[in-house]
Amino acid sequence: MPGPLSLNTVTVKERWGLRECIEGCARHGIPGISPWRDVLQGMGVEAAARAIRDAGLSVSGLCRGGMFPAADAGGRAAAIEDNRRAIAEAHAIGAACLVMVCGGLPPGSKDLEGARAMVRDGLHAIMEEARAAGVTIALEPLHPMTCADRSVLSTLGQALDLCDELGEGSGVALDVYHVWWDPALRAQLARAGRRIAAFHVCDWLVPTTDTVFDRGLPGEGVIDIPGIRAMVEAGGYRGHTEVEILSRRWWAADPDDVLQEIKRRHATAC
Amino acid sequence: MPGPLSLNTVTVKERWGLRECIEGCARHGIPGISPWRDVLQGMGVEAAARAIRDAGLSVSGLCRGGMFPAADAGGRAAAIEDNRRAIAEAHAIGAACLVMVCGGLPPGSKDLEGARAMVRDGLHAIMEEARAAGVTIALEPLHPMTCADRSVLSTLGQALDLCDELGEGSGVALDVYHVWWDPALRAQLARAGRRIAAFHVCDWLVPTTDTVFDRGLPGEGVIDIPGIRAMVEAGGYRGHTEVEILSRRWWAADPDDVLQEIKRRHATAC
Repeated sequence: MPGPLSLNTVTVKERWGLRECIEGCARHGIPGISPWRDVLQGMGVEAAARAIRDAGLSVSGLCRGGMFPAADAGGRAAAIEDNRRAIAEAHAIGAACLVMVCGGLPPGSKDLEGARAMVRDGLHAIMEEARAAGVTIALEPLHPMTCADRSVLSTLGQALDLCDELGEGSGVALDVYHVWWDPALRAQLARAGRRIAAFHVCDWLVPTTDTVFDRGLPGEGVIDIPGIRAMVEAGGYRGHTEVEILSRRWWAADPDDVLQEIKRRHATAC
Repeated sequence: MPGPLSLNTVTVKERWGLRECIEGCARHGIPGISPWRDVLQGMGVEAAARAIRDAGLSVSGLCRGGMFPAADAGGRAAAIEDNRRAIAEAHAIGAACLVMVCGGLPPGSKDLEGARAMVRDGLHAIMEEARAAGVTIALEPLHPMTCADRSVLSTLGQALDLCDELGEGSGVALDVYHVWWDPALRAQLARAGRRIAAFHVCDWLVPTTDTVFDRGLPGEGVIDIPGIRAMVEAGGYRGHTEVEILSRRWWAADPDDVLQEIKRRHATAC
């Protein structure tokens, strides 16, 4: 049995704001939610925190912090400031973690090692504040096809190397979509243990027609989701199974139908 | 200075067969060529071998063997037979190596470890024949975004693990497009040493609009090609710099213009 279902709000972002997502989760009996910051700010952090609490929902994460690399020192400082606000927001809504999409190459740059150093520096700069707020910083390795423009953090092994450095208060957000291909996945999950702070599911479609917005629902593609979940649980993970779908196809559907379909697939394909 | 330029025929495949490629290389002063098997067979292997020799071209590789995983034993045996023919063809044209695109998941399968075992088994089955023919089997790690449908061999480290097993006569075809993102690249290239049997260049575009057919010419994207080349050469590689571009955009251009542009970029961006 997968962990309790959580809805990542990006899954229905074209039609529902956060209030509709909260009401939808309550209506469909989905016990968890994971908002993106744009819809959280759209509703207002305090109002959202209250509505989530009143609906009895758990918050499996807040998406997203990160985006540290920038062309100049001012840009990097601004990114760190924004991450501080994200930590405060995550604290305010009682999120289990702040999911970090670390950022790609600065515009015009080919200096990948430099960008990775900016990510490391940015994370070090916010860890004390995160620990003080009790917000776990969940590093999300993103699929290598996003390395240039979204995340130079590309593998679970690399994320765990960073966790080793960052220490207490750091962990990993593991999305099957980003890591299923990795020949080191089994070994690195064994190494990760309880540092898995979030578990995200969706599926890899064949063919995949867009590098960002063509994910499938669990069971639509080729990822052995139960197999990966078993490895995650073997390390001690007992949190939510969060469904996060970036898909132009599913964004066009009625959100109530999407939630129905997600519930069905959570029970049968995760 | 990059190694001598070689033209991979797929770069102009929409407009030129192998004869036109050979003549084009001669006309533009490009000293190397790397045919795909479809155009080689289209011209005829003996005729091609003669024309390549007469034009004074080196053959930096033959593309491609591999594609081992299949849904049943008959399919896997057929793949091995086809690889035997590829070895004979590579020998006939004096190719420096046979480039292996190992294959994805069998249709309907989610068993990634099983597919990887099929690749290993297939490679073991052909190594003796390859060694006898003096054809280096060059394992090409492909970008993880191709894992489902083209290659379950996804990283340089994984390719070198296989080389460790396969021993003499095996090596790696390193394409910057497939490996540039890898946080382990520097360490694995140090490990690879002289096992790099081919060096392919092209570039990662931002954004990338297709997972297969949207590569850039060297310098059009974000890959630090000279930086990777320096690491490859530090291990002892002294072979060609092969330009292999799968691009709907460049396929639409006049092949003579493409070859001009490639020569310019080989001198300035590799």
